[in-house]
Amino acid sequence: MFKKILIANRGEIAVRIIRACREMGIQTVAVYSEADRDAIHTDLADEAVCIGSPKPKDSYLNEKNIISAAVLTGAEAIHPGFGFLSENSKFAEMCKECNIVFIGPDAEVIDKMGNKSNARKIMANAGVPIIRGSEGVVKDEIDGLKIADDIGYPVMIKASAGGGGRGIRIVRNREDFINEFRTAKSEAKIAFGDDDMYIEKFIENPRHVEFQILADNYGNTVYLGERDCSIQRRNQKILEEAPCPIMTEELRRNMGNAAVRAARAVNYKNAGTIEFLLDKDFNFYFMEMNTRIQVEHPITEMVTGIDLVKEQIKIASGEKLEISQDDIKIQGHAIECRINAEDPARGFMPSPGTIELVHMPGGLGVRLDGAIYQGYKIPPNYDSMLAKLIVYGKTRNEAINRMRRALGEFIVEGVKTNIEFHYNILNNDKFLSSDIDTGFINKEFGL
Amino acid sequence: MFKKILIANRGEIAVRIIRACREMGIQTVAVYSEADRDAIHTDLADEAVCIGSPKPKDSYLNEKNIISAAVLTGAEAIHPGFGFLSENSKFAEMCKECNIVFIGPDAEVIDKMGNKSNARKIMANAGVPIIRGSEGVVKDEIDGLKIADDIGYPVMIKASAGGGGRGIRIVRNREDFINEFRTAKSEAKIAFGDDDMYIEKFIENPRHVEFQILADNYGNTVYLGERDCSIQRRNQKILEEAPCPIMTEELRRNMGNAAVRAARAVNYKNAGTIEFLLDKDFNFYFMEMNTRIQVEHPITEMVTGIDLVKEQIKIASGEKLEISQDDIKIQGHAIECRINAEDPARGFMPSPGTIELVHMPGGLGVRLDGAIYQGYKIPPNYDSMLAKLIVYGKTRNEAINRMRRALGEFIVEGVKTNIEFHYNILNNDKFLSSDIDTGFINKEFGL
Repeated sequence: MFKKILIANRGEIAVRIIRACREMGIQTVAVYSEADRDAIHTDLADEAVCIGSPKPKDSYLNEKNIISAAVLTGAEAIHPGFGFLSENSKFAEMCKECNIVFIGPDAEVIDKMGNKSNARKIMANAGVPIIRGSEGVVKDEIDGLKIADDIGYPVMIKASAGGGGRGIRIVRNREDFINEFRTAKSEAKIAFGDDDMYIEKFIENPRHVEFQILADNYGNTVYLGERDCSIQRRNQKILEEAPCPIMTEELRRNMGNAAVRAARAVNYKNAGTIEFLLDKDFNFYFMEMNTRIQVEHPITEMVTGIDLVKEQIKIASGEKLEISQDDIKIQGHAIECRINAEDPARGFMPSPGTIELVHMPGGLGVRLDGAIYQGYKIPPNYDSMLAKLIVYGKTRNEAINRMRRALGEFIVEGVKTNIEFHYNILNNDKFLSSDIDTGFINKEFGL
Repeated sequence: MFKKILIANRGEIAVRIIRACREMGIQTVAVYSEADRDAIHTDLADEAVCIGSPKPKDSYLNEKNIISAAVLTGAEAIHPGFGFLSENSKFAEMCKECNIVFIGPDAEVIDKMGNKSNARKIMANAGVPIIRGSEGVVKDEIDGLKIADDIGYPVMIKASAGGGGRGIRIVRNREDFINEFRTAKSEAKIAFGDDDMYIEKFIENPRHVEFQILADNYGNTVYLGERDCSIQRRNQKILEEAPCPIMTEELRRNMGNAAVRAARAVNYKNAGTIEFLLDKDFNFYFMEMNTRIQVEHPITEMVTGIDLVKEQIKIASGEKLEISQDDIKIQGHAIECRINAEDPARGFMPSPGTIELVHMPGGLGVRLDGAIYQGYKIPPNYDSMLAKLIVYGKTRNEAINRMRRALGEFIVEGVKTNIEFHYNILNNDKFLSSDIDTGFINKEFGL
């Protein structure tokens, strides 16, 4: 086992990783930017190295400084957390060259999964359902019509250069296709200066359901059930739950097995997540694979009893998975609310500032993964997540009631937060009956 | 189910009960003394009623004021927590007379168990092992010698008027008995003005192992495993764990069944605890029954997944137990550290004052049941417990490592605490191998 690990991240995930290391008897090295001198992760680690100015590219994205810090402190491995360098294959490669273990999959695998069209092909070959679409750019409207006819309506026309929901058209009827395609193409030309177009089957009101997997270096791969992450604002998850309330045993087995096939297809190692869209008829489609620990990993820990970060470290150090698929049982229900310093009333605009007062919830079934304290100055340079509030209950109903009361106890003064917004979600009828899809927040709250 | 419950307590247990009520959709009424205007329980409840001056007898022990507050606010039930009025049969009776449900057993049962010699007799009749001893006061040294011979050495000679370890002699050999008895008797006369003496079998280096039971109003009684509470300073528990590290399946069944027999013998209702001494040869002896929720109840909740306070409320409202003995499985390991504002270096002297800074631990497997905040002034009128830090792990080893790291994160400034003392316990070799008994702290730390 490693004696010392460097954590190439900040905020609550850095704290989360330090905690796992400490419980395993592993020394920790934090890295921090000049904006994070007073951050908890800087204080909590056994050693801390300043790696640059507040701008991410100068510090948390500065591969060389981070590697130097590892070499300097004698860290044998680097845990990248999520975001920053966690899915940067070049960084994973650099670690390897410097004889430092990157806690995650191999650089080639990160690359394979990072290229979306490549990943699609690998998945299709592995028998993982993908969303049917044009293989590459559509030549013209006649070619497009043929593809759309073949896929079946509704279809989605996507600008190659678009992103974040822009440059997308939904076509529900054959007779509308040519017109919509032309308009979309000319709009893309104007908006992005690029009118390459793709076509894809449009999935109506899908849920976002993702599967956690763990794979060791010896070919053992297991899935740890799913997370329903359909509650999103502007494609960003803010509340997740496990298990997915509409999951059946059979569907879990099918999706789980597909997730394992996906991982095996690329000889995946360490923790990873396969994201699927799930439609109303329980068809599921591969979206992408995240080759790192996810923000929402704690809800899987709560319902499986498995510490994912410890497993990551054990796998990276060469240990064999001790758990087999049959050992993994989903028990109870967990919900995570991402507590952000932001103003829901103003388009979720970040609200940096000083936390004048904070009171954290506690008690039975409440877990808090945070990195804030009273008096903490939230730097404006990074994302707005302050903490993750996670609850566990025997049933979904108990988890919901527990989350409501925990949110009620959570007091943050000095910055705006989305605590009340979460409370409103937890009192929404459609949420309560889990009649939700990825458009939930937009449809129910107009946001 | 009740619509409104009054909580006749303060501090973390009041907060604990309010949390359970809130999750069940029950309105809460806090009562508070003038010293507790700024206490969290006062703030957190839906309503709060001031019941008197800081002195316990004027407020938290003031039955009439508490009953008045319940009548005034329309509370249908009173949860007494622990301490204060929780084992006061007169108060339980007053509640009944005022048509308010006392969340606990009937007044007669509290009385039966409150009288130690009566409780012994009931237990002996129910087939629960008791510590053999003189039935009542020993007439003289000759009578005493006969009893001691019959019981077998070592025996303990106890002054009837003694208490807290004073007025006790251990006799290991027959030939010492007469002398020791005479000396003890004359010492008792001088110290207490009363030389009535009892004799009891002396249990060498016992562990304190207690069993949690739940009983509904329909004769269903179950045990929820045990808690090892051997880590005590001056007869006060400060660190508890579940399960008991040296427990076997068979011994648990035997002790658990004895606990159920004990409860059934008095037609016990609601949550209760049977305290046993466990000797090196795995013989166990009834000590006493606590007819209320215990401070250390959370560790049982962690390893059984059962919310004891919710069960108390459901039972008191007339619901049937939904769990049978076979449903109860002990999973993993839990430890609780009582975090007190006290100075271990000065005989654990209470250290009231203002909490200038507090940072609470969090993360996977960490539960915090507290009632403090930064800026809180700890009133000198009540006990010194600030919070209970509870951890859960898959194994005892994981729980210990988790508790160490959680204690390391727990920062309290402004008052002295026993956080470091707990840390020392968790690094003691005898504790680690669980080679402990109730004398552990005295023997290992000389305290």
